[in-house]
Amino acid sequence: MDQPLLPTDASLAALHWRYATKKFDASKKIPADLWAKFEQALVLSPSSYGLQQYKFVVVTDAALKEKLKPASYGQSQITDCSHLVVFCARTDVTDANVDHYLERICQVRGTDLTHLKEGFGKVIKGDVVHGPRHALIKEWCARQVYIALGQLMFFAALSSVDICPMEGFENDKYDEILGLTAQGYRATVLAAVGHRADDDGAASLPKVRMPAEELLDRR
Amino acid sequence: MDQPLLPTDASLAALHWRYATKKFDASKKIPADLWAKFEQALVLSPSSYGLQQYKFVVVTDAALKEKLKPASYGQSQITDCSHLVVFCARTDVTDANVDHYLERICQVRGTDLTHLKEGFGKVIKGDVVHGPRHALIKEWCARQVYIALGQLMFFAALSSVDICPMEGFENDKYDEILGLTAQGYRATVLAAVGHRADDDGAASLPKVRMPAEELLDRR
Repeated sequence: MDQPLLPTDASLAALHWRYATKKFDASKKIPADLWAKFEQALVLSPSSYGLQQYKFVVVTDAALKEKLKPASYGQSQITDCSHLVVFCARTDVTDANVDHYLERICQVRGTDLTHLKEGFGKVIKGDVVHGPRHALIKEWCARQVYIALGQLMFFAALSSVDICPMEGFENDKYDEILGLTAQGYRATVLAAVGHRADDDGAASLPKVRMPAEELLDRR
Repeated sequence: MDQPLLPTDASLAALHWRYATKKFDASKKIPADLWAKFEQALVLSPSSYGLQQYKFVVVTDAALKEKLKPASYGQSQITDCSHLVVFCARTDVTDANVDHYLERICQVRGTDLTHLKEGFGKVIKGDVVHGPRHALIKEWCARQVYIALGQLMFFAALSSVDICPMEGFENDKYDEILGLTAQGYRATVLAAVGHRADDDGAASLPKVRMPAEELLDRR
């Protein structure tokens, strides 16, 4: 077996270190070269079938952040963070979306498109576009962005960068301000990314988790 | 700013290394002391309000895996993996569930319960139990387990352990076999955890992701 890339205790230390940052230091910005790595992490997020039916709006413009703040119950993280990531899930998945993905597979792997459409393509479409999952397609797409959120929170912690994940915002207003509806997306969840303020009291609060014996059911 | 715990390029290397394992080496089991760290990572998963309305069923019993395999379209990962994690989301969230969480906060942080119920407790209940989110409570709980899934996939990669995330199973049958419904849970997504077989062809396939310019929308 391979050696771990990072000792597991160090991975756990990162998970202990992170917390939902309540107050960012607005003067600390994430350098462009580091942010480029964050974007790579977002692109590398796993998703069901690898279909990636989402996009990530990354907001750094101060005026746009000011516009989004009242749609986020005035929370200061929106304007004080360095980069605001809006996780946008597709509101529908069509045959064309699947075909676009199949074409990408061919491009990367040199697979034969006809063969792929007959096999993998039919499986995906039969499930997601024409099958039982389609009735809940918005939710299925929304679930996938939470994988990306979970991964990004961990990635940030490993990089000693802070994140506040946020569901507390008005999705409709975000969709309107960012013009998402016409593009077929829905603002689903946010991650404010940056660096904690020295006086963020939340940083030193003991982490609360339910006891392991309540959360784990070993069979 | 702090130094990163792990160079970001190493974090990205872990994300490149991982893939949805199609064939596990059934002879390679994760040692108990290492698995204990995985369980800690699961417990440390972030969730909205910190409410953790889920549990993780961890299956290692060979007979039970054999029972679950036909409910998973016969996929070999179910029986060949070392540990099968069934991510179970609550099917409802009640005032009592929230109170239980508030009591846990008091236990860990020594906060006054009455004070907490009047403040944070009212906010959570007003949103999740009696507010607009309650109409979609099953989905809200399901989304949270995808955070845990995303985090666990990354944790495994950092530990050089393989995972196959799986939505392809019959949720109703899992609920029945594992007795989840009566406990108020729903089998939502799976992670088969273990070590790839040397001849798993999927390991060497180039990773397919949509181009960054399609997934990222910088404003």
